[in-house]
Amino acid sequence: MSGAEANAGALPSGSTIGIIGGGQLGRMLAMAAARLGYRTIILEPDVNAPAGQVANSQIVAAYDDPEALDQLAMLCDVVTYEFENVPVAAVKALEARMPVRPGSKALEVAQDRLLEKATARDLGAETALFAPVATRADLDAAIAVTGLPAVLKTTRLGYDGKGQAKIVRPEDADSAFAAMNGQMAVLESFVHFESEVSVVAARGISGEVRAYDVTENIHRNHILHTSTVPSGLGAEACAKALDIAAGLGRHLDYVGVFAVEFFAVRDGAGHRMLVNEMAPRVHNSGHWTEAACAISQFEQHIRAVAGLPLGDPARHSDCVMENLIGEDVARLEALAAEPGAVIHLYGKSEARPGRKMGHVTRIAPKK
Amino acid sequence: MSGAEANAGALPSGSTIGIIGGGQLGRMLAMAAARLGYRTIILEPDVNAPAGQVANSQIVAAYDDPEALDQLAMLCDVVTYEFENVPVAAVKALEARMPVRPGSKALEVAQDRLLEKATARDLGAETALFAPVATRADLDAAIAVTGLPAVLKTTRLGYDGKGQAKIVRPEDADSAFAAMNGQMAVLESFVHFESEVSVVAARGISGEVRAYDVTENIHRNHILHTSTVPSGLGAEACAKALDIAAGLGRHLDYVGVFAVEFFAVRDGAGHRMLVNEMAPRVHNSGHWTEAACAISQFEQHIRAVAGLPLGDPARHSDCVMENLIGEDVARLEALAAEPGAVIHLYGKSEARPGRKMGHVTRIAPKK
Repeated sequence: MSGAEANAGALPSGSTIGIIGGGQLGRMLAMAAARLGYRTIILEPDVNAPAGQVANSQIVAAYDDPEALDQLAMLCDVVTYEFENVPVAAVKALEARMPVRPGSKALEVAQDRLLEKATARDLGAETALFAPVATRADLDAAIAVTGLPAVLKTTRLGYDGKGQAKIVRPEDADSAFAAMNGQMAVLESFVHFESEVSVVAARGISGEVRAYDVTENIHRNHILHTSTVPSGLGAEACAKALDIAAGLGRHLDYVGVFAVEFFAVRDGAGHRMLVNEMAPRVHNSGHWTEAACAISQFEQHIRAVAGLPLGDPARHSDCVMENLIGEDVARLEALAAEPGAVIHLYGKSEARPGRKMGHVTRIAPKK
Repeated sequence: MSGAEANAGALPSGSTIGIIGGGQLGRMLAMAAARLGYRTIILEPDVNAPAGQVANSQIVAAYDDPEALDQLAMLCDVVTYEFENVPVAAVKALEARMPVRPGSKALEVAQDRLLEKATARDLGAETALFAPVATRADLDAAIAVTGLPAVLKTTRLGYDGKGQAKIVRPEDADSAFAAMNGQMAVLESFVHFESEVSVVAARGISGEVRAYDVTENIHRNHILHTSTVPSGLGAEACAKALDIAAGLGRHLDYVGVFAVEFFAVRDGAGHRMLVNEMAPRVHNSGHWTEAACAISQFEQHIRAVAGLPLGDPARHSDCVMENLIGEDVARLEALAAEPGAVIHLYGKSEARPGRKMGHVTRIAPKK
């Protein structure tokens, strides 16, 4: 499709974008949409969710409520989603009536760790060794494929370390299998990575892909702790990661922002880049773009969804983003006193342990 | 007051800030408040106003509606306003019950051009020559003070060139006087300025003042067209402007962001800096701060109002802000294609001629 054809479909200012999901990602998307003059409607069952507070309105209903989906279709010009566990059937029902960006294809792949890894492999990317595990016998066969240590993960609905069990010795297998609660799982070889990095990229309706600089991520208790840009990774490894991400975007006929997480494994003077997972949405490891780029990942996603030209993903600053988890949010006043610290809180009333309450991005002139 | 005492009063995240006025300034304040985890309630009679769309809620009532003010006082922890024509009596009524930042003193001065100029003079700042005009005879006396050409302005409720009449020759006096419609007016000598500049500064509850870089402004049809940073003004003239602004802030016991507009008049190798007017609020000539600084004027105002430490006003980029007036908003798609262009639209449904619909800030690396 030519750029001219694609742009013919750009939403005029004042149009309405529906967002399925009302968390902090939806909140930041709604604010980015507002800055471009778009109205937003959130579909979210929690009446106190972060996104509803800043959107034009909220439909308070389950993500797959047929009446709510009908309402969304009637009121919106285009629909997007802010998390990958939206029921595929709901998105397919909407897709039959109106543009949904990104569509159900990316959702199906991202919801299934096996399909996700197989897709990455099919596109020529490396991943950890893996094997499917439906039964206890499968697990023994899988260990023979991956070796130990390995990590057993449910194929669906896991995030931030939930639904995972590590197997270090063969005798850990029973309890790990039990922890899956009968759900379909995948065993993945434990990767001795030097660093974890991610690519946050956008694909426009014209097929153009624009990626932000590769981000280096540190996790604590399976939750993202910091994202640092520039990463410590060499130019060749970064190029490899960007290339894999672009290929995935094309393969999925993706429209919007997505993230691909990688393990960077030392290999001589360079690195092997193993795809860990992909997220069909704006991503925590891209929050720094709001502070260090003219166009944030949130605006970039809205631009793609609205059929506008993608923005320039260039950075004006170096930065480190730190997640504010649970009681970290009480540090507001101290953080506000730090020069160069850009604070972003999500409007969540209860600071439960492990809950993402906000983030702070510390910017500094580019080196 | 010491910083420690001041900071003891900082609002915790989750507190509620009331904003009187629902225009684009209120909209951008509400979004900045949300990013700091604060809730916002807008008091605004227009149900479709820009701010209500992104705030937690809106009280749809006149700015001086006693019941609405009572509701605002009960629901909010602190109240601010987004435009200078809020009835002073309404702010005084709230002040008796709760913190209102900035308070009624700044409002009274800013609402009266005569008092505004007299205040600037009292603080040792220069202004244009001026004289009060209540009667037709006053106007002749005033012309003797200011000389011609001069500009006759109502003392109250004028903005964007409304309520103004230029007097070039004595025979223009009758029609200019008639144009005031019997309202109290002030005659100001016409200033042959080299440039118009403004200072956007914040004063915190500890008394600390932090100013953004001096901005050079170009008006078209009495409406701000562009703001450019850095300005073309020398360091000495900039320092003088910043000093006058800080003095005004202190004199008014101001808390929040305010703007002072100056005429820079060539004087040998340097400039005389004449105070034109002050605005007790975030200001159009500070919109660039959102694109070129870590902490925007909107967040800076919210920080001051919430009793948080003020943010660093340093710029990471050079920039030019351009207002999008009326049908300019239809340029959305072309603007989105420009690298480095940060677009901000206000969610106004009708693009009337002369109406501020949004702005675009073009950023570039600092020279």
